[in-house]
Amino acid sequence: MGLLKRFSQGELGLNRVEAFSDGVFAIVVTLLVLELRVPVLHDRGSVGELGHQLVDLVPKFLSWLISFIIVCKFWLNHHHLLGFARHATYGMVWLNSIFLMFQSFIPFPTALMGEYPMNPLAVSLFGVVMAVNTLLFIALQSYILRNLIKPELLGTQVPHLTRKSFVGVISYLLGVAATLFNVHIAVVLYALTPLFFITPPQAKNN
Amino acid sequence: MGLLKRFSQGELGLNRVEAFSDGVFAIVVTLLVLELRVPVLHDRGSVGELGHQLVDLVPKFLSWLISFIIVCKFWLNHHHLLGFARHATYGMVWLNSIFLMFQSFIPFPTALMGEYPMNPLAVSLFGVVMAVNTLLFIALQSYILRNLIKPELLGTQVPHLTRKSFVGVISYLLGVAATLFNVHIAVVLYALTPLFFITPPQAKNN
Amino acid sequence: MGLLKRFSQGELGLNRVEAFSDGVFAIVVTLLVLELRVPVLHDRGSVGELGHQLVDLVPKFLSWLISFIIVCKFWLNHHHLLGFARHATYGMVWLNSIFLMFQSFIPFPTALMGEYPMNPLAVSLFGVVMAVNTLLFIALQSYILRNLIKPELLGTQVPHLTRKSFVGVISYLLGVAATLFNVHIAVVLYALTPLFFITPPQAKNN
Amino acid sequence: MGLLKRFSQGELGLNRVEAFSDGVFAIVVTLLVLELRVPVLHDRGSVGELGHQLVDLVPKFLSWLISFIIVCKFWLNHHHLLGFARHATYGMVWLNSIFLMFQSFIPFPTALMGEYPMNPLAVSLFGVVMAVNTLLFIALQSYILRNLIKPELLGTQVPHLTRKSFVGVISYLLGVAATLFNVHIAVVLYALTPLFFITPPQAKNN
Repeated sequence: MGLLKRFSQGELGLNRVEAFSDGVFAIVVTLLVLELRVPVLHDRGSVGELGHQLVDLVPKFLSWLISFIIVCKFWLNHHHLLGFARHATYGMVWLNSIFLMFQSFIPFPTALMGEYPMNPLAVSLFGVVMAVNTLLFIALQSYILRNLIKPELLGTQVPHLTRKSFVGVISYLLGVAATLFNVHIAVVLYALTPLFFITPPQAKNN
Repeated sequence: MGLLKRFSQGELGLNRVEAFSDGVFAIVVTLLVLELRVPVLHDRGSVGELGHQLVDLVPKFLSWLISFIIVCKFWLNHHHLLGFARHATYGMVWLNSIFLMFQSFIPFPTALMGEYPMNPLAVSLFGVVMAVNTLLFIALQSYILRNLIKPELLGTQVPHLTRKSFVGVISYLLGVAATLFNVHIAVVLYALTPLFFITPPQAKNN
Repeated sequence: MGLLKRFSQGELGLNRVEAFSDGVFAIVVTLLVLELRVPVLHDRGSVGELGHQLVDLVPKFLSWLISFIIVCKFWLNHHHLLGFARHATYGMVWLNSIFLMFQSFIPFPTALMGEYPMNPLAVSLFGVVMAVNTLLFIALQSYILRNLIKPELLGTQVPHLTRKSFVGVISYLLGVAATLFNVHIAVVLYALTPLFFITPPQAKNN
Repeated sequence: MGLLKRFSQGELGLNRVEAFSDGVFAIVVTLLVLELRVPVLHDRGSVGELGHQLVDLVPKFLSWLISFIIVCKFWLNHHHLLGFARHATYGMVWLNSIFLMFQSFIPFPTALMGEYPMNPLAVSLFGVVMAVNTLLFIALQSYILRNLIKPELLGTQVPHLTRKSFVGVISYLLGVAATLFNVHIAVVLYALTPLFFITPPQAKNN
């Protein structure tokens, strides 16, 4: 039975897991722009009216920008992480699916924060969703590093990877806490967090 | 003619069938979130009003969650199944296309059940669509197992695979029947059904 | 210069052309369902009212079904055709892009015919768009068969392929003409046309 | 550390960067059609009323057409460019992500120009976004040509490539300037610009 199980797990190639994940990342990132609706103008030719309407869209542009960078960061780290795995297993595929579920949820809090940028609940929901996404990525990461790591990479990678990721969770949750005082601080924290992760964490060198 | 036909069928690589299918799965799963619309608030900064509106969205969140898990399950089993096939044929591609057609239909009953969670017809339509999807997957499965299975895998896989799948059909139809009495029981059944299939059925060991 | 040009053209692998095309096909096919909007009910729990509303959606379901089958047919024939090509060139990529442009246009006439199934202009536009798509596919086909065919396949394939495709164009245009008398005949013709092409045309055997 | 860094960068295969990019390109190009909304008719069966409504949609069709060609051109040049790279690095992935961010933004100015074709601000925004996209592509291009070019291609490609790209930027900005006098000239310039780039720039021959 153990043998059969292993065979069955080995049957799952990484390529379709990557293709499905890349599809979801690409769609999430592209759907974000759908929240930028064409404004309704009374004077259709008026430059001034359209200018004012576009200025009113600034919170939505910002919300879109922050989410885009965050999802790209998750995609890059996902790409980096799957490079460590020797194959896929059902456990890994399900952790990946739940992670992708919360990735695909991102357009909702993005739209909510873009529409109600001064509403503390709307702004804090954004941070909570990003913190949950980061936690799910950490779960996927530790599963892969514990069970699926390529033999030649064993040992050096594990500790550093996990620790830096929690910085992301804490940073998003600080943003959530900041909404109690000032929503702008929260948005700044959300925008800064992915910048700490623009390169995936490096392995320790000693 | 027989020879030409075989050649022509052999021309169809599995890779583009997988790429097209992965694309459809990824888009279906990501479009589901578009039904979660940003609520309209009278007091744009009110935490309480937004909170109430988000609570009203709970049936839509649940509907989205159940569909997401179900589509991921279909994707995983599809991935597993195509691992058995040695190549694609026109028959297989058309069965696959009809299956994908009903997969791509899933956002509609999901949105309907999310909008009208107490309407027995809305809830039962969800179950009917999932039962039809499962039947179409079984059709694809038995076609592949009968005609396209890799020679080295012949014999052990066939019976067990088909039997367990019908459990899914029956479970969804029990949910449909339950809507006559209580829609909540139906939703619970829909949510539980994919959990029986989080790992694809294993081959018999003797 | 001739040498450099050939080198530059040889640089274009078929894999990304296929990936881009598969992405467009998969998205077109999945976006079609977005036209099936959740009906607005006055009595949210009423089975009868929802039932009536779903019956009113039947033209949209039919329109969706016909388009889905047609796009899958184009995808299958595209997959088959690219199997003949030894590589991609700029000419081929642009013909492919224009073909994909009209493929991605399909959701519009589909939605129009679904919304106004008794309007002769709406129904005839659907046929015109499908005829144009078929013509563009024929253009792509004859370009590939003339310029890019794998040396080992030369000779046998060319004539038969092109001739059968024109049957599709004529059939869609007959549907367009039928809208002058009876829109139902047009819809039946649209539904039947792809059934002639569920397998790509075979090479002549002598 | 230098060694480790190089290893870490070598870990990033080009295939997922291409898959993610192709996904974004394919979705952008297909989402463009969603702006073509089914018109509302008072007399649902009237050919004349639908005809008038479709004529009113002509600016949206044109806007869609121009954007489609432009995005296909970017895709083709992206495909061509990545053929020069020996692998991906974090710097390249982030430049690519920012480029894709502005690609995914294209549906918004396209919809705006389609809705308000006589509004100088709407028309000029379209040109600005295309100029920014071209500049970001140039940045990606010079990064790859400077740091990641395959050793066997070194030398001949670099100068010609960059110079021709700036023609695109200038052409889009001329269109933006033209909106001060006449929006039609701007639209014509936007439509003509991608036609200069239907084949990626060739390397110098001496």
